[in-house]
Amino acid sequence: MLHVVSKEDAVACVLRHTREMRTQTEKVPILRASGRTLACDLQAAEDVPAFDRTTVDGYAVHAADTFGAGAAIPAQLTVAGSVAMGEEPQFSLHAGECAAISTGGMLPQGADAAVMIEHTDNDHGLCLVYRSVAPGENVTRRGDDIAAGSTVLRAGTRIGAPQIGVLSALGVYEVPVFRRPVIAVISTGDELVQKDPAAGQVRDVNGYLLSALIERAGGEALFYGAVADERQRIADALKDCLEKADAVLISGGSSAGTRDMTVGILDELGEVFFHGIAMKPGKPTIFGTAQGKPVFGLPGHPLAAYFVFRLIVAEYLRTILQAPADKPLRAAVLSTNVPSNHGREEYLCVRINERNEAVPLHTKSGVISVLSCADGFIRIPRDTEGLEKGANVEICEL
Amino acid sequence: MLHVVSKEDAVACVLRHTREMRTQTEKVPILRASGRTLACDLQAAEDVPAFDRTTVDGYAVHAADTFGAGAAIPAQLTVAGSVAMGEEPQFSLHAGECAAISTGGMLPQGADAAVMIEHTDNDHGLCLVYRSVAPGENVTRRGDDIAAGSTVLRAGTRIGAPQIGVLSALGVYEVPVFRRPVIAVISTGDELVQKDPAAGQVRDVNGYLLSALIERAGGEALFYGAVADERQRIADALKDCLEKADAVLISGGSSAGTRDMTVGILDELGEVFFHGIAMKPGKPTIFGTAQGKPVFGLPGHPLAAYFVFRLIVAEYLRTILQAPADKPLRAAVLSTNVPSNHGREEYLCVRINERNEAVPLHTKSGVISVLSCADGFIRIPRDTEGLEKGANVEICEL
Repeated sequence: MLHVVSKEDAVACVLRHTREMRTQTEKVPILRASGRTLACDLQAAEDVPAFDRTTVDGYAVHAADTFGAGAAIPAQLTVAGSVAMGEEPQFSLHAGECAAISTGGMLPQGADAAVMIEHTDNDHGLCLVYRSVAPGENVTRRGDDIAAGSTVLRAGTRIGAPQIGVLSALGVYEVPVFRRPVIAVISTGDELVQKDPAAGQVRDVNGYLLSALIERAGGEALFYGAVADERQRIADALKDCLEKADAVLISGGSSAGTRDMTVGILDELGEVFFHGIAMKPGKPTIFGTAQGKPVFGLPGHPLAAYFVFRLIVAEYLRTILQAPADKPLRAAVLSTNVPSNHGREEYLCVRINERNEAVPLHTKSGVISVLSCADGFIRIPRDTEGLEKGANVEICEL
Repeated sequence: MLHVVSKEDAVACVLRHTREMRTQTEKVPILRASGRTLACDLQAAEDVPAFDRTTVDGYAVHAADTFGAGAAIPAQLTVAGSVAMGEEPQFSLHAGECAAISTGGMLPQGADAAVMIEHTDNDHGLCLVYRSVAPGENVTRRGDDIAAGSTVLRAGTRIGAPQIGVLSALGVYEVPVFRRPVIAVISTGDELVQKDPAAGQVRDVNGYLLSALIERAGGEALFYGAVADERQRIADALKDCLEKADAVLISGGSSAGTRDMTVGILDELGEVFFHGIAMKPGKPTIFGTAQGKPVFGLPGHPLAAYFVFRLIVAEYLRTILQAPADKPLRAAVLSTNVPSNHGREEYLCVRINERNEAVPLHTKSGVISVLSCADGFIRIPRDTEGLEKGANVEICEL
């Protein structure tokens, strides 16, 4: 029987045994890249913008030609031509010349600024400029946004709309991402059924809940379904999943006997590293490896399985996907005292009230509905007697 | 020429013309429901749990039989039987009786509490109970988590892992969700190319950026691609998209002439409600309807198109999907003064530093890379001279 470990030691142990595991890389079309994880640092292959361009409708000028211009004494410039959108101007500006240009147009040679059309007038083919501009004014220079060669996105970045914008600006239409690690989910329990429970039977929750969490964390869920609490059946399910998946979650075995059975099976097929974490909920958690793949035994209570996934399994996925740590959602103060003196780090669902206070939602173990009406959760460190009303807490995303 | 409207008036106008639009409902398998939007209030058809069950391994008891029990004087109970997991006990407890039971087991008739196995001993078939329990102790009663008939999830709820947990607990394996509204995206501009830009040409960013934003907001993007700034081509593209989509975004037309062209086309095909919003960036925004469908003209600058989507188009999607408003990510204080006296509500990308200060990321219009390195954005109201260092700001998610 292995000792119960602290949450920190549990995470460290999981990472020690999984950090060398790497998922493969694949390329996906940019329009399908949202939610995927970038597999390598991305260097810009080109400047963005690729040429000096105006940010206004008006005239491209050599700024020095406008110095001293004002409402009373406009600068008088000769219109040397007009810049067509999407084309390179086939002329240069000489002293005293300007060129008509629209927003986004490419500056001709010799121009270093632009004046807004509102500050100009046209007098028999001459352009009158009523306001001076500084060099660079109303212009975005080549590479101002992204310089060729610079690293614009880091490996491990979760790709969202902002990243899609950057990728398209650089012409990266096939995006190198990590293959989604396949995580199998087995639920165990003689009482579990998928449909039409008779008296004493319950519907499997963890299979679905964990599958959704896996996909949110960037993995692909292999939903195995429920198996009865029999050693041979669980062993067969585990072997089957080890063939097909990169990691396996076995949830359930809420009774001590079943947990010991799972430990026994894992011990036979591989190695068990810990059995029990000082967290609440989530204590009866098992971690080991078999066939070089991580296997997590999760509690049967949905709320406990939820927190073990968020705080332990998610760290494994984060590591192999090289993703950054979660940031807390927001800070708040506690609305009430929360005692906690059982020597385990505790997780508590909270609601945020209109005074930005975190209101703990106390629940019995095994309750699932609290998850869907909470705004987030807080942590209570294990080395405290709890937290007092008014204490500053960080709200983490559920 | 229509007047420039405030951001609030723009949102109100969009909602006035779109709030009666409803998307159809469809059913999706629970394992594919993540990210979708619930189409109706969901009432529980059954109690969860469906029976009184224990939360510990030990013995089901009638609590009154344990009153007064202690370490020195244990209660002595007769073991009437053993509850098998997943089965309804075929016996009742009479006075002085108990039943062996595992976590999650169904209480037999006559039991109203459970004692942990650690607080018991076995003496020649008698169960010795060393601690008294109160009625209901170590028991989850039928309906404690979810009572049959109660509304557990509201229409408009974005379905994530917590909701998947609740749905599976209730046996809702086919989930009623709104069909994703199809939003077409047209980019306009003679300078736009999809690949290998020559001098003066630029890659289309908005087509991809807006498609990713549409999907994040719960819609399905119809990526139309870029069309040249010619009235007939834009009109043809718009008509084509109006056939296929629920709404159309036309981005680009960064020059005043093209914007007027888009207004003209929309005016011919339907009605224009405003042309210009007092927001920065994002001023040159157009809204109208054609064939009973909303059409948004968005700025060509990616950053401006981004904020117009987040603050205007997203409100339309939120309304037809009955989704709740975004909550700010977190509160912070400004790291520096931010002047803003141009009479437009302003949006500024910020980073959060280690002192939880919001550090503004100043950028030129048209720049896209700032989006991917910011932690969020702040709003500066239009009726201020800006915000001072130390001001409280709410950080919104990008």
